[in-house]
Amino acid sequence: MNATDLPAAIRAKRSYLCVGLDTDATHLPKGVGSGAAGVLAFNKAIIEATKPYAVAYKVNVAFYEAMGTEGWHVLEQTRAALPDSCYLIADAKRGDIGNTASRYAQAFFGHLAFDALTVNPYMGTDTLEPYLAYPKGDIFVLACTSNPGFAHFENLMLANGRRLYEEVVAQCQSLTPAERVHFVAGATHITALQAVRTLAPKAVLLVPGIGAQGGNLSLVSKTGFSWQAPLLVNASRSVLFASLEHDFAQKAAAEAARLAAEMSVILESL
Amino acid sequence: MNATDLPAAIRAKRSYLCVGLDTDATHLPKGVGSGAAGVLAFNKAIIEATKPYAVAYKVNVAFYEAMGTEGWHVLEQTRAALPDSCYLIADAKRGDIGNTASRYAQAFFGHLAFDALTVNPYMGTDTLEPYLAYPKGDIFVLACTSNPGFAHFENLMLANGRRLYEEVVAQCQSLTPAERVHFVAGATHITALQAVRTLAPKAVLLVPGIGAQGGNLSLVSKTGFSWQAPLLVNASRSVLFASLEHDFAQKAAAEAARLAAEMSVILESL
Repeated sequence: MNATDLPAAIRAKRSYLCVGLDTDATHLPKGVGSGAAGVLAFNKAIIEATKPYAVAYKVNVAFYEAMGTEGWHVLEQTRAALPDSCYLIADAKRGDIGNTASRYAQAFFGHLAFDALTVNPYMGTDTLEPYLAYPKGDIFVLACTSNPGFAHFENLMLANGRRLYEEVVAQCQSLTPAERVHFVAGATHITALQAVRTLAPKAVLLVPGIGAQGGNLSLVSKTGFSWQAPLLVNASRSVLFASLEHDFAQKAAAEAARLAAEMSVILESL
Repeated sequence: MNATDLPAAIRAKRSYLCVGLDTDATHLPKGVGSGAAGVLAFNKAIIEATKPYAVAYKVNVAFYEAMGTEGWHVLEQTRAALPDSCYLIADAKRGDIGNTASRYAQAFFGHLAFDALTVNPYMGTDTLEPYLAYPKGDIFVLACTSNPGFAHFENLMLANGRRLYEEVVAQCQSLTPAERVHFVAGATHITALQAVRTLAPKAVLLVPGIGAQGGNLSLVSKTGFSWQAPLLVNASRSVLFASLEHDFAQKAAAEAARLAAEMSVILESL
């Protein structure tokens, strides 16, 4: 699936929910076992429970790398368990020079067959081009993130009158093919999200920071959603850890359903 | 080994060479086999051949991830083959929010037992703190990198009169413990390297960009080396691919020896 397929998928499901599989091997609910096998069993149950409500899944690669070789095997098995009818994002925030970036493209778009990868722009737009040189795969460039450290560098004012994150979005507009270039914009800095939307009217915005981090779904959606270039609003912990008891999958489904219902109402009002 | 042990190690070996294991499975010399097994055999031969001349090794994680689970297994085996008497850097350029960064610390400092990790500052210094909260492990924060894209964001002038990379180095000075915070400064932008050295007089600088990328070893060393806070000058392709014939290990040793001899002369002149 490509980012250009998202409007139709969102229309069909009345949801722009992305479920984040930030699965913590040390924080698994009752009844799924433990370790790598527990993570995989948990992921499969969460995917099964939430797939009626999610248009996208985002897999946080760090949580798998923390388990070493076994973790990469679980990452591969989790990818295999994800429905191809959803948009599948590897959240790895990679950024490196050309020959290295090509390897990451091969790892995530090729070997693991994700539809998209999050990437870090710090080292320059030349470090983003190798992903786009790969035959397929979208990139989500970090613009303004939801953490407090947004203020440290991303939001600094440049001598040219732009904030750093605005400069990132502006310079990325010349990357091609443009329909493969999208952005991460956190829910907690609404002015920044609005600025990104203005600079990149055709880009999908992947929005973390709803829920545990305090972002407001309705405000974010009114600011950033357009049918030309929708939002994907991510929820990780609020869905994954809705319960740590045997009913975790039902509770995750209920939380995903609640978010999707809220999104459906918002979509009606746009 | 810690960064604080580097001056003694450099004094003993008369070398501040870091050999970069950016091993490309599609570009292996004759006689080592192919695929993951070939990469491991090649790495072991290169480590054995270069360890008299190298004080550090830097493993470029992307090249292993590109091979999936098998690649992570080779990364683990490569790590096991690296001498603990050298300073061992995982070049992964990670950067993510707190709970994710903690996982990366666990993966690279814990599971893989590297001495140091390269990290990306874009998301703010709060995303660097989890590495320092881990009981051990140094970080090398990307400041000014050796690629042309350095000009796109890293070198932008801020409204406060600093370049972005200078602001990164300046803000990182308040991270603690300070002796675990170091920087990546490319050999190809010598003014920037000098500025980093001035802002961070006690930090080790990891310097890519000598050799294939055109940086000048003598100039870099005179600008950045101090016994209080040395340089590690990285060479990857010029050593790894000194020959693609059966004599690749001898040729790699010869190139590492040549660089170390040049460093020895420079150290005499400082």
